[in-house]
Amino acid sequence: MRRVRIALLGCGTVGGGLVRLLAAGRERIAASHGVEFELARVLVRDVSRAREGVSPERLTSRVDEAMPDDAEIVVELLGGLEPAGTLVRAALRRGLPVVTANKALLAEHGRELFALARANGATLGFEGSAGGGVPIVRALRGGLAGNRIESMEAVLNGTCNVILTRMEQDGMSFAEALRGAQEAGFAEADAGLDVGGHDAAHKLVVLSALAFGHWAPPSSVNVRGIEAVTPQALADARARGRALRLVASAQRWGAALELSVAPRELPREHPLARAAMEQNVIVVRGDTVGELVFTGRGAGAGPTATAVLGDVCDAVAALPRLEAWMPPAMMRAG
Amino acid sequence: MRRVRIALLGCGTVGGGLVRLLAAGRERIAASHGVEFELARVLVRDVSRAREGVSPERLTSRVDEAMPDDAEIVVELLGGLEPAGTLVRAALRRGLPVVTANKALLAEHGRELFALARANGATLGFEGSAGGGVPIVRALRGGLAGNRIESMEAVLNGTCNVILTRMEQDGMSFAEALRGAQEAGFAEADAGLDVGGHDAAHKLVVLSALAFGHWAPPSSVNVRGIEAVTPQALADARARGRALRLVASAQRWGAALELSVAPRELPREHPLARAAMEQNVIVVRGDTVGELVFTGRGAGAGPTATAVLGDVCDAVAALPRLEAWMPPAMMRAG
Repeated sequence: MRRVRIALLGCGTVGGGLVRLLAAGRERIAASHGVEFELARVLVRDVSRAREGVSPERLTSRVDEAMPDDAEIVVELLGGLEPAGTLVRAALRRGLPVVTANKALLAEHGRELFALARANGATLGFEGSAGGGVPIVRALRGGLAGNRIESMEAVLNGTCNVILTRMEQDGMSFAEALRGAQEAGFAEADAGLDVGGHDAAHKLVVLSALAFGHWAPPSSVNVRGIEAVTPQALADARARGRALRLVASAQRWGAALELSVAPRELPREHPLARAAMEQNVIVVRGDTVGELVFTGRGAGAGPTATAVLGDVCDAVAALPRLEAWMPPAMMRAG
Repeated sequence: MRRVRIALLGCGTVGGGLVRLLAAGRERIAASHGVEFELARVLVRDVSRAREGVSPERLTSRVDEAMPDDAEIVVELLGGLEPAGTLVRAALRRGLPVVTANKALLAEHGRELFALARANGATLGFEGSAGGGVPIVRALRGGLAGNRIESMEAVLNGTCNVILTRMEQDGMSFAEALRGAQEAGFAEADAGLDVGGHDAAHKLVVLSALAFGHWAPPSSVNVRGIEAVTPQALADARARGRALRLVASAQRWGAALELSVAPRELPREHPLARAAMEQNVIVVRGDTVGELVFTGRGAGAGPTATAVLGDVCDAVAALPRLEAWMPPAMMRAG
């Protein structure tokens, strides 16, 4: 059994979910991937707070101690540009595989970070950065080879969708629904990135880089949030047989690509209109494959931790000292 | 630019689609993967028939000439157990990466073939074997790491769904709808594998191996097809607000796994009930990620060729003499 030591940067909602999933899935991961993961170090703000499943001596609040020499994989779940950016760059320069769920960092500096990874022979996994538990990065990265992607439309922010769902179903005001989402743990105390549409814009930039092959500056995305949506507007839409969703959209106009995030009214049967509560829905159209629709939970600890762990397992395969990996499960009889 | 030579076994619907996609996507593949594919040899039944995009001197009907020494990747699209099995085994023994869409072969001999691949350090791609253009193999293979998959339910046979859709919408008999599907190119002349549910059963066995970690013998799947479905049964279901679909299902019962394929009545809002015409829909439930739903075209040349080409591009990354692959597109500015 191969042991692989992880430096975990950040132990909030998703980080905590990953720690739980590593523990709950220990046997399954050992069977399917032949590895056992160990937390070498866990970077947190407050080392005095106990974290379930993490020995206190592994905790550190010092950025310069966050990635010990024996760490083999770095998982960045801090969010935000700094210190995440500095740590990710340092890890990549050391040639370490990095797994991140940080859409803000990738949207702002993705091009540079992938170039750095390439220059240092490191891998950079980012399934957790968009779509929560929906394996959309995986799908776009390899599944649509040869296709010209015509368009992408998606509900990418679970918090906004929870708020819109509650406003529509219970006639709540935006402020009430936001408070409810915060109490339910979906929205951050500072929910501005979510409700302002910027989180969805970051995710759209990341997915567009995969789908269309170039990094659009986040500032080029036309963004409108849901702050001004009223219960009346939702009721009116419903009366017309329509639903309102915060839609992130990438459309080709000739040679140009237009990225936008805005509340949009959709027919009830539209795949995006069916996004309920924290669900994310992504609709991709390729010229040869046609329309693909992906649906799953886009927020919460479990779904995103699943996405992150998938990347961690992939990163193991890319580690030196390991033969080409083949899931042992594929060789077991029924 | 790296040139990679493909031995293509079979040039029917999907094979022809792959040839077209390779031509249409040449520039995109070069940009995204840094490779140019070339058909080293194409195995067909009838060499006298011209194939668009294939030079006649590349065609052969001789199985012993199908995989020349300079072929670097083998793509098996013959279908059926033989000669596909013999050729795939020979390729794997030579250590060649193999990409196949052959669900019958994998369902019957998957365990042996993956063991052979592993023993010879070869890769075996099979995205095209289930779900058509839906990247479900990719999702199950890596995207749900650590999760215990609780269940899987799917519409996996596009032909049956076309038939059921037409019977319901136009009140056709089964025989009429089948003839229509054959004329539209969805169903084979011998449609027994499709309408009898066996094709869906093969796909279910393949996906279950990934999801649940062991190969169930195809004979263990409880299979019922759609031959006995009447327009009246569909109309009755519709009157009750329900729709009838051929559902492939994998359910855990304690330690046991029950696989079945059968026509089932579903509420209209059920994700599987929404499968229209040749669409495939796959619903997977994991203990941590929750419910994921994947929808896309499950039949036809383009979608399956897309899936196959994705595997071919992945196989390139596993070829020797190539550095770790990073999509150049990820480093281009917006």
